Amino acid sequence: MINVGLIGFGYWGPNMARNVQENSGMRLHSICDLDAQALDLARQRYPGVLCTSRADELFANAQIDAIIIATPVNTHHQLAAQALELGKHVLVEKPMTDKVATANKLKELAARMGKVLMVDHTFVYSPAVQTLKKIISSGDLGDILYYDSVRINLGLFQHDINVIWDLAPHDISILNYTVGKQPRWVSAHGSSHVGNHLENVAYVTLGFEDDFLAHFHVNWLAPVKIRQTLIGGSRKMVVYNDMEPTEKIKIYDKGIDVIPQNGIYETLIQYRTGDIAVPHLENREPLKIEMEHFVDCIQNGKVPWTDSHAGVQVVKVLEAAQESIKQNGIPIDIG
Amino acid sequence: MINVGLIGFGYWGPNMARNVQENSGMRLHSICDLDAQALDLARQRYPGVLCTSRADELFANAQIDAIIIATPVNTHHQLAAQALELGKHVLVEKPMTDKVATANKLKELAARMGKVLMVDHTFVYSPAVQTLKKIISSGDLGDILYYDSVRINLGLFQHDINVIWDLAPHDISILNYTVGKQPRWVSAHGSSHVGNHLENVAYVTLGFEDDFLAHFHVNWLAPVKIRQTLIGGSRKMVVYNDMEPTEKIKIYDKGIDVIPQNGIYETLIQYRTGDIAVPHLENREPLKIEMEHFVDCIQNGKVPWTDSHAGVQVVKVLEAAQESIKQNGIPIDIG
Amino acid sequence: MINVGLIGFGYWGPNMARNVQENSGMRLHSICDLDAQALDLARQRYPGVLCTSRADELFANAQIDAIIIATPVNTHHQLAAQALELGKHVLVEKPMTDKVATANKLKELAARMGKVLMVDHTFVYSPAVQTLKKIISSGDLGDILYYDSVRINLGLFQHDINVIWDLAPHDISILNYTVGKQPRWVSAHGSSHVGNHLENVAYVTLGFEDDFLAHFHVNWLAPVKIRQTLIGGSRKMVVYNDMEPTEKIKIYDKGIDVIPQNGIYETLIQYRTGDIAVPHLENREPLKIEMEHFVDCIQNGKVPWTDSHAGVQVVKVLEAAQESIKQNGIPIDIG
Amino acid sequence: MINVGLIGFGYWGPNMARNVQENSGMRLHSICDLDAQALDLARQRYPGVLCTSRADELFANAQIDAIIIATPVNTHHQLAAQALELGKHVLVEKPMTDKVATANKLKELAARMGKVLMVDHTFVYSPAVQTLKKIISSGDLGDILYYDSVRINLGLFQHDINVIWDLAPHDISILNYTVGKQPRWVSAHGSSHVGNHLENVAYVTLGFEDDFLAHFHVNWLAPVKIRQTLIGGSRKMVVYNDMEPTEKIKIYDKGIDVIPQNGIYETLIQYRTGDIAVPHLENREPLKIEMEHFVDCIQNGKVPWTDSHAGVQVVKVLEAAQESIKQNGIPIDIG
Repeated sequence: MINVGLIGFGYWGPNMARNVQENSGMRLHSICDLDAQALDLARQRYPGVLCTSRADELFANAQIDAIIIATPVNTHHQLAAQALELGKHVLVEKPMTDKVATANKLKELAARMGKVLMVDHTFVYSPAVQTLKKIISSGDLGDILYYDSVRINLGLFQHDINVIWDLAPHDISILNYTVGKQPRWVSAHGSSHVGNHLENVAYVTLGFEDDFLAHFHVNWLAPVKIRQTLIGGSRKMVVYNDMEPTEKIKIYDKGIDVIPQNGIYETLIQYRTGDIAVPHLENREPLKIEMEHFVDCIQNGKVPWTDSHAGVQVVKVLEAAQESIKQNGIPIDIG
Repeated sequence: MINVGLIGFGYWGPNMARNVQENSGMRLHSICDLDAQALDLARQRYPGVLCTSRADELFANAQIDAIIIATPVNTHHQLAAQALELGKHVLVEKPMTDKVATANKLKELAARMGKVLMVDHTFVYSPAVQTLKKIISSGDLGDILYYDSVRINLGLFQHDINVIWDLAPHDISILNYTVGKQPRWVSAHGSSHVGNHLENVAYVTLGFEDDFLAHFHVNWLAPVKIRQTLIGGSRKMVVYNDMEPTEKIKIYDKGIDVIPQNGIYETLIQYRTGDIAVPHLENREPLKIEMEHFVDCIQNGKVPWTDSHAGVQVVKVLEAAQESIKQNGIPIDIG
Repeated sequence: MINVGLIGFGYWGPNMARNVQENSGMRLHSICDLDAQALDLARQRYPGVLCTSRADELFANAQIDAIIIATPVNTHHQLAAQALELGKHVLVEKPMTDKVATANKLKELAARMGKVLMVDHTFVYSPAVQTLKKIISSGDLGDILYYDSVRINLGLFQHDINVIWDLAPHDISILNYTVGKQPRWVSAHGSSHVGNHLENVAYVTLGFEDDFLAHFHVNWLAPVKIRQTLIGGSRKMVVYNDMEPTEKIKIYDKGIDVIPQNGIYETLIQYRTGDIAVPHLENREPLKIEMEHFVDCIQNGKVPWTDSHAGVQVVKVLEAAQESIKQNGIPIDIG
Repeated sequence: MINVGLIGFGYWGPNMARNVQENSGMRLHSICDLDAQALDLARQRYPGVLCTSRADELFANAQIDAIIIATPVNTHHQLAAQALELGKHVLVEKPMTDKVATANKLKELAARMGKVLMVDHTFVYSPAVQTLKKIISSGDLGDILYYDSVRINLGLFQHDINVIWDLAPHDISILNYTVGKQPRWVSAHGSSHVGNHLENVAYVTLGFEDDFLAHFHVNWLAPVKIRQTLIGGSRKMVVYNDMEPTEKIKIYDKGIDVIPQNGIYETLIQYRTGDIAVPHLENREPLKIEMEHFVDCIQNGKVPWTDSHAGVQVVKVLEAAQESIKQNGIPIDIG
């Protein structure tokens, strides 16, 4: 039985708590939040759980094996570092930290301490993304040509981070996990309409070796909720629409065949249109699967699907995107 | 009665021919195409119409009042210039020409000759875009904050131009016509997967005064056909989905209210969610309306909604986008 | 504070429990279920609540003010009758009972005891149906001409009742509440594909005075989930699609104008197509609103929106539909 | 080369004319219509074709091999009979005639004359229905359990027939062609809201041997256009949505497994949910395929997919539905 201390009982923390509670390998030992009202709610829901406003208590408590951090991103580094140093396993909400430097430090610290450091890139654990990975890994799509994601809605405006730091971690982590290529540069544009210099709409382009291109549209000020990803392959193409209740992934046996002729103007392009397949997806909550995986990693020494390396990769892209916006779209190398 | 000579009877020309034929103010006088098979088809469909492979014949024919050009873009300048010089009115397919310099020359020539020079930005004449313009002009949306368009499908790969020159003219002309602001810079990324250096997927960002941002995703290699534009306003927002058979435009009484407090971190953002209105759209073919407008401009000296100035503006953005792609996304000024 | 005893902790009971718990005017006093496993779950979730397998204990307990019944329908009459006789207010799951005779008895008993007897026609409390009622009551639709509902999916096959008794109570209660007309006859067809003589697909037609017609398609064996109701009015029409996350109700300013001429063959029918309006709906759980209403009725002597009269009306239609199926669609009078 | 005379150039006739014209095995010889305006339009579109208001001329003309009839249904019998008697092949718009008696007479007459008598059940020739037939014939769906079709929109009110005679022929002919079972009885309800006793909304139920049930909802007064058919099988299920531009048919590997236990209340029902397959459909106009088939039948003595027998079957159901409506839903035998 793994004793878990949860830091942060705001927006996402309660989901963490519920999934810890429902996992037979974990026990929700303590909850920490600075906000009195949040703590009251935690006490009411979990009568037997220690509730405190002091994170130190959790770190110092020898009974606690693992710390879950669901606090604002600018606190991630310090909290995770303390937890690791005191020998706790750590699951930290995305993004891992707010700087590549601190993300790398955490990664090294976890390695030195021999503890699990997992980043809560929740979507990676969803049946849809797991299926997507299988499809791409199978090679059925042929060469992956582009990856396009739209993640927009009338969303919760954050007060400390812009829309890229809030929403793009989902796309970057899904892209990393399923396609597995590392971008060479990042270019981004964005705009802030709230007067606080935090972009609420942004476009991020990632450049790769060969002609693979990835692009994200993230937006907190859209009238409709869209969660749609297109993946173009040389043989087949995929649409992943997370708003569909069940038919989230469609595989299109559709594309073009390029038949070189004499000279480029002679290139013959033939279109193919075949059947569409909609794979059945297991109906399980991603966070539940993630918790099982966290337990598995702690108990059996496995490497998390979303380990600290994946966490660093995400922060690298975010930091570069931020820098590119400042420089009006100049591509920033992240070799 | 305006006698019309049509040059080009390939993909789009036949639609032009049909709409000239059905317009009571015009007569389809001649059809010109270099391709024998296309000419045969023209002869079969329009028995009484002069069919020729020599454009000169049309220019020289004093009976012909107006020339419609539906040929590859690299021929537009020369054909339109000849027509104008010989005193014909001209309707030229989009984009107007393949260079800003030649587009400007045509514009000056038309002015000097006192002839109508109209660019076939067809969408501008659609009931949906006309309604969009009314909505935006009414001020109901408040300040326009962003304009986002996705125009993708498994499309006809062109052999002489990339996907931006093929599809983005629609978006640029709709944006210009409805929002009416001029961009200051253009940034673009794209990729070619066919081996001919013509991009088949591209992302174009347009920067404007204040914080207004426009973005187009154009793609010839997408598994699904999407024609969707989001327009974010400070008071209301619009979704224009051209794939919807009738409910193309939805106006969302949705948005945020920014209430400044002490310091930026205190800014209070209140969300508003109200009714949605779906205006009724006339069910008429845009090209039919465009032809009526062309007649009206010729007969009554009106300035076309899509005049040569609008044509030049579109080519400016295209040329800058092309240049930006070459420089990997560096923003190109188009002051 | 109203003390509530809940009987039945199977499929629907836990939702009842949660909403009682979250209502500040109620206290979840006891839970009763015959199934040991269900009781264990109840004990785990609600540590302070009395859990028992004997309903008698709840009826006998003077502290309990109201009984909520969420058990199989064939037990409703007996349980509700006992509760009422011992002076409890009652909220009983739909359908009220499995016979018109017993439904009427309960109704009379509640009146005699002066207690609230409310039927859990949950949809009536949904923001969508509340809005529907307002639209219809306003007269904006003109005369109501037809009401058509499709309520199908791959559903939970019940072992004691057929698909009509399971799903049609929703449609009948919504129809009664919003349109308010009483049907004169019921005709129904159905089929059983499981070998247990319980229909899993059925069509129910309700006939009314004048030319108003209502029709329900209910189906447990459909590949897709559809919850769609069309309401045709002489001036406007409504589509209520409960599967839409937010845009559940659309009002179409669409219809025909009948202009009598000489003789019926001369009748001129003019079509009207105008705007569509999508009213904003409050985002609240219907059961939460229902619980507040139950409290309001108990404390302030109000008549429930879904009172015993409404409950009887629903059972009347169900019983007649059942009889009609037996007689292969012969219409059954329910004057 | 088959010379064709077309009678009727109103709503559907022009589509017939165009498809005859574009078929290389046919020549559009003559067009007949009683309406002067329709004839003028015919003359304008088809300069070389004989246009007349007298059908006799067509029957008498020895050059004409086949007659296509696209006139009001009450004229079908007389026109088709005359054509057949004078040795013409006949393609008659659906429904074949307005009475079973006359439909049977035509059928016999065609047999006696040795001529092709084909009924224009256009949908049967669509790639979607052809694919549907293949799916059902393959046995992949298992036993066919139910067939449910909704065919509604704000439609053209007919002045001589009700909505069943107008729209249900599509459903009946598709059902007959794909499932191939003959109904034993028909029950129907409908309502007229125009004051001319012609139903504009109707529900038709067809009963078959075993527990197979078919049901059609047809409606001229619906705010939205729906063309959706559900086919429930014991192993798989199909949704055929004709409004989808390309993904018209979806095959759901979804259903239940019935596992008999001790006693019916013990029956275990297991749910299966698997992948969905969307077969690619050829993009061809059904009427074009139908014309090719008509030529093939005439030239090669083949039996039309929609022969006179199929035509009679459709009229049988229509007549019975009409009678059932008169008797308020009493099922009418059509053994």
